[in-house]
Amino acid sequence: MEKNFKLVVEYDGTAYLGWQVQKTGPTVQGELEKAIFAMTRQEVRITGSGRTDTGVHALGQAANFRCETRLTARAFLGGLNSLLPPDIAVKDVCEVPLGFHARRDARSKTYEYRIANAPVRPALLRNFCWHIKSPLSLASMQKTAELFLGEQDFKSMEGAGSPRQSTVRRVSRSEVAPRDGLLVFTVSASGFLHHMVRNMAGLLAAAGRKTLSVEQAAAVLSARDRNLAPATAPAQGLFLVEVIY
Amino acid sequence: MEKNFKLVVEYDGTAYLGWQVQKTGPTVQGELEKAIFAMTRQEVRITGSGRTDTGVHALGQAANFRCETRLTARAFLGGLNSLLPPDIAVKDVCEVPLGFHARRDARSKTYEYRIANAPVRPALLRNFCWHIKSPLSLASMQKTAELFLGEQDFKSMEGAGSPRQSTVRRVSRSEVAPRDGLLVFTVSASGFLHHMVRNMAGLLAAAGRKTLSVEQAAAVLSARDRNLAPATAPAQGLFLVEVIY
Repeated sequence: MEKNFKLVVEYDGTAYLGWQVQKTGPTVQGELEKAIFAMTRQEVRITGSGRTDTGVHALGQAANFRCETRLTARAFLGGLNSLLPPDIAVKDVCEVPLGFHARRDARSKTYEYRIANAPVRPALLRNFCWHIKSPLSLASMQKTAELFLGEQDFKSMEGAGSPRQSTVRRVSRSEVAPRDGLLVFTVSASGFLHHMVRNMAGLLAAAGRKTLSVEQAAAVLSARDRNLAPATAPAQGLFLVEVIY
Repeated sequence: MEKNFKLVVEYDGTAYLGWQVQKTGPTVQGELEKAIFAMTRQEVRITGSGRTDTGVHALGQAANFRCETRLTARAFLGGLNSLLPPDIAVKDVCEVPLGFHARRDARSKTYEYRIANAPVRPALLRNFCWHIKSPLSLASMQKTAELFLGEQDFKSMEGAGSPRQSTVRRVSRSEVAPRDGLLVFTVSASGFLHHMVRNMAGLLAAAGRKTLSVEQAAAVLSARDRNLAPATAPAQGLFLVEVIY
């Protein structure tokens, strides 16, 4: 009997070439497909809600796979967590209608970008934040984060190399707040362009350093030109937090 | 001119055989001494506030070293952080009177023990907590943590192999609270016995699982017999937070 399973996956992206299967090294999708093969002897293809880049982490990536099996969601939850490497964990498995598609059906995603703003580099969090030595203005970052809200053209925040037909996206939440000694940028949207959150974090950092005023940041956004925006923030500060269906 | 420097050190203990220099592998003290040698060409010996075991972490381990040098505290802060591996960072360096001794002068230390109480193992925090699947009673853990308060004989909480003359210690803070999805045990004392915090965490977990009542936990403590106490909690949940002088 064909079944469709939805997974919620947490991973430390440090050791992986991102989500999507690559020939050149280990990926999260690849590890999951290996573990499913070990349980079912079927070469299934997993569909993620979207890709994450090399070094990017997830607290709640979503994915689905279809498979002829008598195994239950509960059996997959236990089995996959015994088979997967320790830096990948499946937090939840549930059976969903056969038509469910983790990428096409995603209504909203939330990412976090974490910045350690301190004179000395972090040791414990070295793979889980962007370390910026020079003092950042939280107020400037908060005002700049508000610029991202609403439906608008984010062409200035799109990474090179994988252009989309439309660069208009709807951002429903965009805020910067201190948490546990870090500065955390939280952003939710109907969908994201390639490198969009890391480019937003780069713009926020420039505003925080005051190398760019809030007005200049607004001008960068409305220019619809990636070349005017500051550099992309590094991968290790980014976390895919949740996907809503 | 001989100077004495006090360091505050953060480290991810995952890759180290603990603090103290060993012949069998890398240690935090060993890495610090190598970095100081690279800066001064002197084989100095660093004194830590105390040892930490293999896999134990520190947010604020304290240490000192004496050295004939013209280098300033500021020069050591910058130099050591460029030379040390990424999982060790020196958060602060200051010059102190020649008589200062990081172990003998420590007045109080604070440790945290972090528990992930969830049905599924953590991926991101796999090296930074003890994962316990079965539901824990926070109230029972809190009541048991109160038993540790005050000056008393902690012989039941002393690890085998390194007995001290006196097993009496004064605990000034002992509490369990939820934080960021974890259960965090925070304990401050004038000094700690070998494996004392990990044995306390083992007792707290038994109380949380209700395999031991609060009264039974009290009886274990007053028996002054390690053999009656539950197993030592694993190293990776333990953090040395702060040393007060």
